[in-house]
Amino acid sequence: MGEQSYGPPASASIANPAAEPAPGGPVRDHGGALDAAEARFGRPAEGWVDLSTGINPWPWQPGEISADAWNRLPDRAANGRLRHAAARYFGASPDALMAAPGSQALIQAVPRIVRRGHVAILGFTYAEHARCWRLAGHRVTVEESLEAAAGADCVIVTNPNNPDGRQVEPARLLELAGRLAARGGLLVVDEAFADVTPDLSVAAQAGTPGLCVLRSFGKFFGLAGLRLGFALGTGELVRRLEEHLGPWAVAGPALEIGTAAMADAGWIAATRVHLANAARDLDALIECYGLTVIGGTDLFRLAQTPQAVALYGHLGRQGILVRSFDAKPDWLRFGLSPDAAAWERLRAALASFNLAA
Amino acid sequence: MGEQSYGPPASASIANPAAEPAPGGPVRDHGGALDAAEARFGRPAEGWVDLSTGINPWPWQPGEISADAWNRLPDRAANGRLRHAAARYFGASPDALMAAPGSQALIQAVPRIVRRGHVAILGFTYAEHARCWRLAGHRVTVEESLEAAAGADCVIVTNPNNPDGRQVEPARLLELAGRLAARGGLLVVDEAFADVTPDLSVAAQAGTPGLCVLRSFGKFFGLAGLRLGFALGTGELVRRLEEHLGPWAVAGPALEIGTAAMADAGWIAATRVHLANAARDLDALIECYGLTVIGGTDLFRLAQTPQAVALYGHLGRQGILVRSFDAKPDWLRFGLSPDAAAWERLRAALASFNLAA
Repeated sequence: MGEQSYGPPASASIANPAAEPAPGGPVRDHGGALDAAEARFGRPAEGWVDLSTGINPWPWQPGEISADAWNRLPDRAANGRLRHAAARYFGASPDALMAAPGSQALIQAVPRIVRRGHVAILGFTYAEHARCWRLAGHRVTVEESLEAAAGADCVIVTNPNNPDGRQVEPARLLELAGRLAARGGLLVVDEAFADVTPDLSVAAQAGTPGLCVLRSFGKFFGLAGLRLGFALGTGELVRRLEEHLGPWAVAGPALEIGTAAMADAGWIAATRVHLANAARDLDALIECYGLTVIGGTDLFRLAQTPQAVALYGHLGRQGILVRSFDAKPDWLRFGLSPDAAAWERLRAALASFNLAA
Repeated sequence: MGEQSYGPPASASIANPAAEPAPGGPVRDHGGALDAAEARFGRPAEGWVDLSTGINPWPWQPGEISADAWNRLPDRAANGRLRHAAARYFGASPDALMAAPGSQALIQAVPRIVRRGHVAILGFTYAEHARCWRLAGHRVTVEESLEAAAGADCVIVTNPNNPDGRQVEPARLLELAGRLAARGGLLVVDEAFADVTPDLSVAAQAGTPGLCVLRSFGKFFGLAGLRLGFALGTGELVRRLEEHLGPWAVAGPALEIGTAAMADAGWIAATRVHLANAARDLDALIECYGLTVIGGTDLFRLAQTPQAVALYGHLGRQGILVRSFDAKPDWLRFGLSPDAAAWERLRAALASFNLAA
């Protein structure tokens, strides 16, 4: 199977030169990739242009946060308001979902509450799935097709996929969930980037036996520091995840901001169009300078060039951080430039790189 | 041993009348006690005076939070700044501590990373300890003395204790940690309320084999909604807890606010005196109306009266919520009144309750 996944962030090994590999796979980095990039490239005089994430650079703007949200333990009513706003946003029942402090917490939690067995991950994809299922004692394989994965006890599909944007049709996923449910299995669909492809989501089908959907709040809404994510599934799955995460798992400000943001239908619709246009614009820019766009979502684009390793270093020395992949040395993933200055720095850096070198 | 612990909150059974008991003990409530109180007493016209918690009603005031804290994944540098500020505040080494999204997350995590065995809890105390150790598969007993507990594989001591304020001398704890370490055991000291009794803390001794200290940020700093807590211990324990909680566990705003608040030595010193005076003032008030103060900390006071059950209901009908204990029917725990209006409402409600009835 080879290396079919990658970790957070790709540069973790730079930041942790002496760390031993974790049992489940690559070393984790408790922070962003910028720390590691600075250790390698130094701090750029003009500051970093961080294109290494898939986080919307134009965040939803929180209003005033209530004193209660900061000062009191998050209460049942605030949790309920968030659950209802999220349910409307996902088109699901409030009883079929629960909130967590980030989707990473759920990527860790689901393997811990599922009976140990064979877990097949549709790769190449985000490495945290394999790492967390292995750490929880499961036997993990990474497969190249849904057919090859379908025989396992649990199947993990990131849809749309990170980093290549591969899409699996909802009907195929629902059919697989049904087959898995019939033998006590589970399909986990990581929809971390599905906010920009709502037609691809199976979140509205949450409650279907055998289906677990994970959603990220911070990526599309541009509020990754808030730590908010959701799991959707049967009442039993939701109850067991709530039990595992325990009381007061989500901070008060996250409950309040999430409730308001997910109800902001105008911002959501406009942002989808805005991100789609920015993604097309990014494609045009990087293709003008000789890279081939081979996939992605409207929150990031995946480019291919035989000179990816050299280009990564060239961009890094110009203070521009993109995502590279140890197992895919000719790939680079680009996030969206937050403003005209960042766009021009990227353009100039691409222009000054001799692709023929 | 009987009922030697209580749960969050005491009124959970009101809010969850149909819920089945969780395997580890009492049903949990994913929120504050006010929801449950409202279901029982209705919503008071003047709003609730919530004296049911041990949270400082005069919170540290966060300044402007950086956009990065909201928008970006919390990075290694922000984590490092918090660790250093916390280390100075606790008098410990930065390498001997880790941050978590609330001390509840740590009360859940520690039992999950410790080899299963016999766990003895010094009771009567906060029920989450027993519940979480049982849920993780340990054999749990609740003991009335440190001597009776000392033979277990793990010993759990809340110091100062909640709700009665019982104090165990640091020297006795360190001696016990040494004995436990010699046979591969662990002493967990929950110092959730130790900010008001710093001389009682063993946090500065973190790194000592066999010792794990849990600290809450939100109670003393009045920011319970932020979700921030700390575990202190050996490098190995800290590493395993970080591994269990995974990357980006603490939200960006919590990292930033925690760093600033724990470095605010003036506020910390003044607040300790302010809380001590408020606690003495609360003692005087409730003793004037015939209750006996039998313990507590400067963040809450524990009172005894044979009429506690009736008084709890009387106060609830006046819109004043205190903490009651199913297993200790003659106890009531009072938090500090946030302002003069709340103090007067409590005074008037105590005055209108006929203690001789």
